[in-house]
Amino acid sequence: MLKLSDLNVCSKDDFVAALANVFEYSPWVAGQAAALRPFAGAGQLLAAMTAAVERAPDELRLALIRAHPDLASKTQRAASLTAESGAEQNSAGLDRLSDAEYEAFERANSAYRSKFGFPYIVCVRRHTRDSVLRDFERRLPNDAKTEAQASIVEICRIAALRLDQLVASDDKLPVHGRLSTHVLDTHSGRPAAGISVELTELSDLGEPRVVARATTNQDGRTDQPLIGGRPVPIGRYELTFNVGAYFADRGVPMSDPPFLDRIPLRFSVSDPEGHLHVPLLVTPWGYATYRGS
Amino acid sequence: MLKLSDLNVCSKDDFVAALANVFEYSPWVAGQAAALRPFAGAGQLLAAMTAAVERAPDELRLALIRAHPDLASKTQRAASLTAESGAEQNSAGLDRLSDAEYEAFERANSAYRSKFGFPYIVCVRRHTRDSVLRDFERRLPNDAKTEAQASIVEICRIAALRLDQLVASDDKLPVHGRLSTHVLDTHSGRPAAGISVELTELSDLGEPRVVARATTNQDGRTDQPLIGGRPVPIGRYELTFNVGAYFADRGVPMSDPPFLDRIPLRFSVSDPEGHLHVPLLVTPWGYATYRGS
Amino acid sequence: MLKLSDLNVCSKDDFVAALANVFEYSPWVAGQAAALRPFAGAGQLLAAMTAAVERAPDELRLALIRAHPDLASKTQRAASLTAESGAEQNSAGLDRLSDAEYEAFERANSAYRSKFGFPYIVCVRRHTRDSVLRDFERRLPNDAKTEAQASIVEICRIAALRLDQLVASDDKLPVHGRLSTHVLDTHSGRPAAGISVELTELSDLGEPRVVARATTNQDGRTDQPLIGGRPVPIGRYELTFNVGAYFADRGVPMSDPPFLDRIPLRFSVSDPEGHLHVPLLVTPWGYATYRGS
Amino acid sequence: MLKLSDLNVCSKDDFVAALANVFEYSPWVAGQAAALRPFAGAGQLLAAMTAAVERAPDELRLALIRAHPDLASKTQRAASLTAESGAEQNSAGLDRLSDAEYEAFERANSAYRSKFGFPYIVCVRRHTRDSVLRDFERRLPNDAKTEAQASIVEICRIAALRLDQLVASDDKLPVHGRLSTHVLDTHSGRPAAGISVELTELSDLGEPRVVARATTNQDGRTDQPLIGGRPVPIGRYELTFNVGAYFADRGVPMSDPPFLDRIPLRFSVSDPEGHLHVPLLVTPWGYATYRGS
Repeated sequence: MLKLSDLNVCSKDDFVAALANVFEYSPWVAGQAAALRPFAGAGQLLAAMTAAVERAPDELRLALIRAHPDLASKTQRAASLTAESGAEQNSAGLDRLSDAEYEAFERANSAYRSKFGFPYIVCVRRHTRDSVLRDFERRLPNDAKTEAQASIVEICRIAALRLDQLVASDDKLPVHGRLSTHVLDTHSGRPAAGISVELTELSDLGEPRVVARATTNQDGRTDQPLIGGRPVPIGRYELTFNVGAYFADRGVPMSDPPFLDRIPLRFSVSDPEGHLHVPLLVTPWGYATYRGS
Repeated sequence: MLKLSDLNVCSKDDFVAALANVFEYSPWVAGQAAALRPFAGAGQLLAAMTAAVERAPDELRLALIRAHPDLASKTQRAASLTAESGAEQNSAGLDRLSDAEYEAFERANSAYRSKFGFPYIVCVRRHTRDSVLRDFERRLPNDAKTEAQASIVEICRIAALRLDQLVASDDKLPVHGRLSTHVLDTHSGRPAAGISVELTELSDLGEPRVVARATTNQDGRTDQPLIGGRPVPIGRYELTFNVGAYFADRGVPMSDPPFLDRIPLRFSVSDPEGHLHVPLLVTPWGYATYRGS
Repeated sequence: MLKLSDLNVCSKDDFVAALANVFEYSPWVAGQAAALRPFAGAGQLLAAMTAAVERAPDELRLALIRAHPDLASKTQRAASLTAESGAEQNSAGLDRLSDAEYEAFERANSAYRSKFGFPYIVCVRRHTRDSVLRDFERRLPNDAKTEAQASIVEICRIAALRLDQLVASDDKLPVHGRLSTHVLDTHSGRPAAGISVELTELSDLGEPRVVARATTNQDGRTDQPLIGGRPVPIGRYELTFNVGAYFADRGVPMSDPPFLDRIPLRFSVSDPEGHLHVPLLVTPWGYATYRGS
Repeated sequence: MLKLSDLNVCSKDDFVAALANVFEYSPWVAGQAAALRPFAGAGQLLAAMTAAVERAPDELRLALIRAHPDLASKTQRAASLTAESGAEQNSAGLDRLSDAEYEAFERANSAYRSKFGFPYIVCVRRHTRDSVLRDFERRLPNDAKTEAQASIVEICRIAALRLDQLVASDDKLPVHGRLSTHVLDTHSGRPAAGISVELTELSDLGEPRVVARATTNQDGRTDQPLIGGRPVPIGRYELTFNVGAYFADRGVPMSDPPFLDRIPLRFSVSDPEGHLHVPLLVTPWGYATYRGS
């Protein structure tokens, strides 16, 4: 990572080179921000760059929008994706789509491009496959002006995440969310240690995708959040807890087969930058969950 | 259905003809019971028949065991299944097995028959596909004497269910279980009416199978139990509640997408003749369930 | 109890004598209803009597209001209370008030009588001591016309309850509520049998008053509802469950002293004719309750 | 507070003077520990002092026991209590006992002293009034040797707490517990802010005593633990939450009076050095609690 303190003092050329792709194929944004150095923090740097975009003339903003690739396009994958765009699309699983999903994305891209004349842009690191398609359906009926503005908003979100990964600074950009869990064994009145937990991203058109596996520690929590240090993608999830094995290991009397074995909690994430806590209170005969904080 | 009062007074031949297949292809059981008429109730009639089986010489009991078909055998389906056996096997979905399941059943049948010299018998109306296979695995290591006795126990369970369907009597044979649910909306403090509920039988080797669909009434219950008037098959189930639509219809503020939408409860049934109540206490932000009664 | 069928055919004098005090010291109400016999049910009889009151001239209605005693008045107790009024006031504990409560009632009565010129009337069998005082505070600011009408409403409620106790009929007047409980042991997955339960009416000015004691049966319920066959008085209650002894008797490992011992649930009743169910789901380490139905 | 680093280098006399009353009226304990300086931490210092007690001859240990005052004795209060003993007894409310409690303590003291010839000693900062009396009842049947040893254990606990208050060191003696709460509003899916919470110590013989009041913050927690930085006294407690006002302030539809208003949770503390978390999950129509961690 680059240090903000170094970026504050290097040559303008070096500065622009370093931040050229924070806005896709658009080094001019960094170029305008360079003049405003030094920056007290990453937040100030981001603000300077987004301000440059906001005040740019319409044609330039449109060119910025058009500089972005189509989502999940096989043709573009082989060719012109920036490393950043590629990594972002992979993070959402867009490189491993089912046939039905590919088709849905292609349909979405063409419909959008033919209506507006520019590609559909969304900050995919804040989304799952399903929520991208859902977002597309919501935006397609809009008019071009609304969509141009919506695209700029998404582009700035993409830029914030790229900057967060690129530049080390004392302040933290508010781009990270967290998804955590906690298992409390209300049969014995203790945190439940040693429970295997699995987090799966669900999809309407494709296969579910396991995105985290962990085992609860002595405090009934996982050592790391299930998702952390990045946005929690908007979407539907299933979190399963292997409580049958846990209670069997402890010699707790149960029915055969056990009334509860693998408990699934199904929920949606709507706020990628929020802290979502999904705990489980459990005995062999019942359980409760709720959106915690 | 036949009236017990009629069976108590008809000719022995008619009595035996009517009850010939309560024990598969073994009218002699009815024949012995005929002499003990009149019966005060179906329970007494069943007891007389099972007592006849219990005191029969070993060869006759073995012949009774051998009179039973293999489970889920394609060859026998085409040929010699009694109507009763066919209906029973279909009730457990044995006529709609996946390839992997068929294979597993064939392996089980051959292994069992070649070890013991008689078919593997289980009262399938008390089981799901998975629990039949699990039961087989548990019984295969036994010795022949244990298995002959286990087969008689299962045959008597089959007979009890056949008698229950065949003969009308004031007393009820204790062969029926019940699976029910109840949804309480703890957001508004009222029973949740109009929630669609779906009960699915899960399987390790085959597809899940929807076994009941219902909508909750004004009392938050379903008008009929999800399963009732028969044993609740041993096995794993998923019960889903469409709470997202319910709260949306009531204008309750929710996140987008809603934190909770279709809530799955996954549990196992271990006591087919028991009353199992699986309620849901729910708000848009959390829920609880437990084995009720 | 009198049979409605007898009342339908007896002389007018007997009819009026029998129902003279359904409306306090006002046999004329029964007198008018007598002409409309026969009645198909108690509901029809009640409707005839309340209709007579509704259409009575204002002076007669005022006389009816004035025929009622003051609540909890020591002077009137010694003298002129009808048996019905006395029993009703006692049912709400108005004969066992603390000094502070007596004083509050006296203040309420005088303030009300001096403002309106007639006694404060409320159907006390639908109330606790506290809710009577609260009702008084709410009504005192009203104008005389509103209060005259409110008094008639209360008088008709009193009449409905008196009729319900006096006349046997096939139909049931909708004057009974029910308060019930249910204890589910989610540690062992069974209804909790043998738990002692105590229901206490709470009061701001006086002592709490135990109104029901029971022990849970095999189904985790009480054999009789905690309150049933009468209105559930509006007010604040505490329901305590002796779960410490229950779990200790079953040899469940607990801390010393046990984390949970006597669990109090404190709640209010607002609908005397409703069915209020207050269950407890409990392990030695946690519990849940909710307004059920 | 004294710094351990200073105690490590001061004169033996100063050292002994400073720690003279860590063990009641027994400077010889500090005297023996002085020779072992320097100590790496408070834990090591405590270990040296308790080791001195452990290896002391029986007469000296008995003298140490006899140097302690009777609990809650009015006579001794007026006279010879060390400042430390006085403060400790006050912390448990032993200076504000009801008459019944005083009497119970006097009875306990005399019975104990006349059986064993030395005073009943318990580390009162780990106890409530009730649990002291309960502890006494448990110990009175013991033999003298067991009680001499039990007294030494309690004396060492007292010493640990005195040392913890007296000496500043990098390490923390494990003498502090914590009692905390958390309110989650599962009606709106958010932490419940602004709820007033009150913690009351319950007593069989005396009045309840409010020991903490707080209001929940934006995270649904209290800014400080309800009890922290000291042992959580063994005993029975009631924690009440004013949820009626909270939901009313938010305009949530409720019954009148509200079904839930002040919710009491009654529980016992058994492990004074443990972390006990007692959360509340609540809607206007139900709630749950459990021993968390």
